[in-house]
Amino acid sequence: MKRILIIGIGAGNPEYVTIQAVNALNQADVFFVMDKGPPKHKLVALRTEIIERYVKDRAYRIVQTSSPERKRDELNYVAAVRELNEEKQRVFERLIGQELSDGECGAFLVWGDPSLYDSTTRIIGAISRSGRHEFEYEVIPGISSVQALAAKHRIALNEIGQSIGITNGRRLAEGFPHDVDSVVVMLDAQNAFRQVCNEDLDIYWGAYVGTPDEILVAGKLCDVVDEIERIRADARERHGWIMDTYLLKRRRKAQQ
Amino acid sequence: MKRILIIGIGAGNPEYVTIQAVNALNQADVFFVMDKGPPKHKLVALRTEIIERYVKDRAYRIVQTSSPERKRDELNYVAAVRELNEEKQRVFERLIGQELSDGECGAFLVWGDPSLYDSTTRIIGAISRSGRHEFEYEVIPGISSVQALAAKHRIALNEIGQSIGITNGRRLAEGFPHDVDSVVVMLDAQNAFRQVCNEDLDIYWGAYVGTPDEILVAGKLCDVVDEIERIRADARERHGWIMDTYLLKRRRKAQQ
Ligand SMILES: C[S@@+](CC[C@H](N)C(=O)[O-])C[C@H]1O[C@@H](n2cnc3c(N)ncnc32)[C@H](O)[C@@H]1O
Ligand SMILES: C[S@@+](CC[C@H](N)C(=O)[O-])C[C@H]1O[C@@H](n2cnc3c(N)ncnc32)[C@H](O)[C@@H]1O
Repeated sequence: MKRILIIGIGAGNPEYVTIQAVNALNQADVFFVMDKGPPKHKLVALRTEIIERYVKDRAYRIVQTSSPERKRDELNYVAAVRELNEEKQRVFERLIGQELSDGECGAFLVWGDPSLYDSTTRIIGAISRSGRHEFEYEVIPGISSVQALAAKHRIALNEIGQSIGITNGRRLAEGFPHDVDSVVVMLDAQNAFRQVCNEDLDIYWGAYVGTPDEILVAGKLCDVVDEIERIRADARERHGWIMDTYLLKRRRKAQQ
Repeated sequence: MKRILIIGIGAGNPEYVTIQAVNALNQADVFFVMDKGPPKHKLVALRTEIIERYVKDRAYRIVQTSSPERKRDELNYVAAVRELNEEKQRVFERLIGQELSDGECGAFLVWGDPSLYDSTTRIIGAISRSGRHEFEYEVIPGISSVQALAAKHRIALNEIGQSIGITNGRRLAEGFPHDVDSVVVMLDAQNAFRQVCNEDLDIYWGAYVGTPDEILVAGKLCDVVDEIERIRADARERHGWIMDTYLLKRRRKAQQ
C-alpha cells in the first residue's frame, strides 16, 4: 500500500509548523513540490527550508514538477479552476503512479491550511475515489494566513455572538455581505476593498504575514484605502508578486 | 516591563501545538490557567499536559483561578457575554497586577486558535488600552477546531471560488444563510442543525476532534440527523460535557 500525507505547513513563518506536521514530515520518503514559475520560486524555497529544517536523519527524495497554470479567464473563473484541477490531477496521478513505490509515503506540502482555498485535498480525494490508484491518505492541518493575520493584528475574527465570512476578492467586489459584520478576504488581485469603501468599515490588512517581509496596516477603511493601494503596488513591484489578506469589520455604533 | 503571551494550543491533539507555541511556552514564567468547574477539568488537564510535555529545563509557576461563568441568559446572549468578559477582565487584571512581576512573562493558553470565539485577546487588549497596567503582549495562532474538523473529514471548507460562513448554533437556528453554501457551526448547544433539515445539505460533524474520544459522522443531513442527535446525547451523558463542530454544505445539483 502507498501512503500520502497532505501536510499544512502554515502561511509564512516556518515556526507555524505543528509538532504533528514535523512528525508527518519525518515519515515521508518523497516530497512532491510544485513550482509555479519565477515569482513563486520563493514559496518553493520556503518549502525546502521547512523540509531541511525539520526532517532529521532520514533519507528522502524531492520530486519537483512545474505546476500547471490557471488560464486567466476572468469571465469563467470556476470553469478555469476546474480545468486547472483536472490538469493537476493528471500530474498528481503520474507522481503517485511513477514516483511513489508500494510501501512508501509521499507528502504534499500545502501552504497555510489545506482546508482553505487549496485544491490538493479535493484532487487527492478525486484520485482516491477514481479507484485507479490504491493508497491511504491523511490531512494534517496548518496555520492559515487568516489566523496569522488575526494574531498579528491581535484581534478576534468574530464580534461577540456574531458570524464570520471568508471570501475572495471577486465576491467582495459584488458588495459587502449584509448578514455578517466581519469578513475575511483572500485572493484579491484587484483591490476589491475599494468597491466597499462607501461602507463604514475598519480594515486589518496584511501582506507576506509571518515572513520577514510582513507589512501590516489597520484603520478606518476610507482613511487607509489609498495607503494600502500604494503599499500594495510598491510591494508587488519590489517582490514580483504579493500575497495579502484582510479582515473587514463593520464599525459598531459605539465606536463612531 | 511585563510581557504577556496569548498562546493558541490547538483544539484537541497536543501535537497540534506549533513550534512557535513551543518556543513561546518556553519563555513563560507564569501560566494562567482558568478552571470552569468539574466538567471542564479535562480541558485544564490537557493544558497542564501541554505545559509538562513541551516546557524544557525551565522553572515556571502555574496560577489556577476559577473562571467566572456566563449567566444562562438565553434572551440576551451578547449582554451576558459582555458582563462575563468584564468579570474576566477583573480577574485578568488581578493576575497581571499581583501574580506577574516586572520583567516576567505570563502566558494564557487558549484552546484552538485565539481569533475564533475566544475572548482572551479582546480582554487583554482592553486592559492594555485602559492604561492601568503596563505590559507588552503578543498572540500566537493555533490550530482551530474548524481546521481539525476539515482535516479529519479530508475536505476543503470552500467550494471552488465560493465563500465560507462561520457561525454559531444560535444564528444557524435563524436559518441557513442564503448567500453562502458552506457554513461551519460552532457553539451549538441545542442541535440547531435540526432547524435547517429541510434544506438539501451535507453535514460533516465531529465531536472531541483530535482527542482519543473523537467521533466523526458525515452524510446527507436529513439521513444522519437522528444518528447525530443520538450520538451527541450519549456522548454528553458519558463525558458530562461535549464540544462539537460541524460543516454544512449545500448539495450541488450534480451530486443529487
Ligand atoms: C490559494 S490561497 C491559499 C490559502 C492558504 N491555504 C491558507 O491557509 O492561508 C492564497 C491566498 O492566501 C492568502 N495568503 C497566503 N499566505 C499569506 C500570507 N503569508 N500573508 C497574507 N496573505 C496570505 C492570500 O490572500 C493569497 O491570495
Ligand atoms: C468557545 S469556542 C472556542 C473555539 C476555539 N478557539 C477554536 O479555535 O476551536 C468553543 C467551541 O469550539 C468548538 N470546539 C472546540 N474544540 C473542539 C473539538 N476538539 N472538537 C469539536 N469542536 C470543538 C465547539 O463548537 C465548541 O462549542
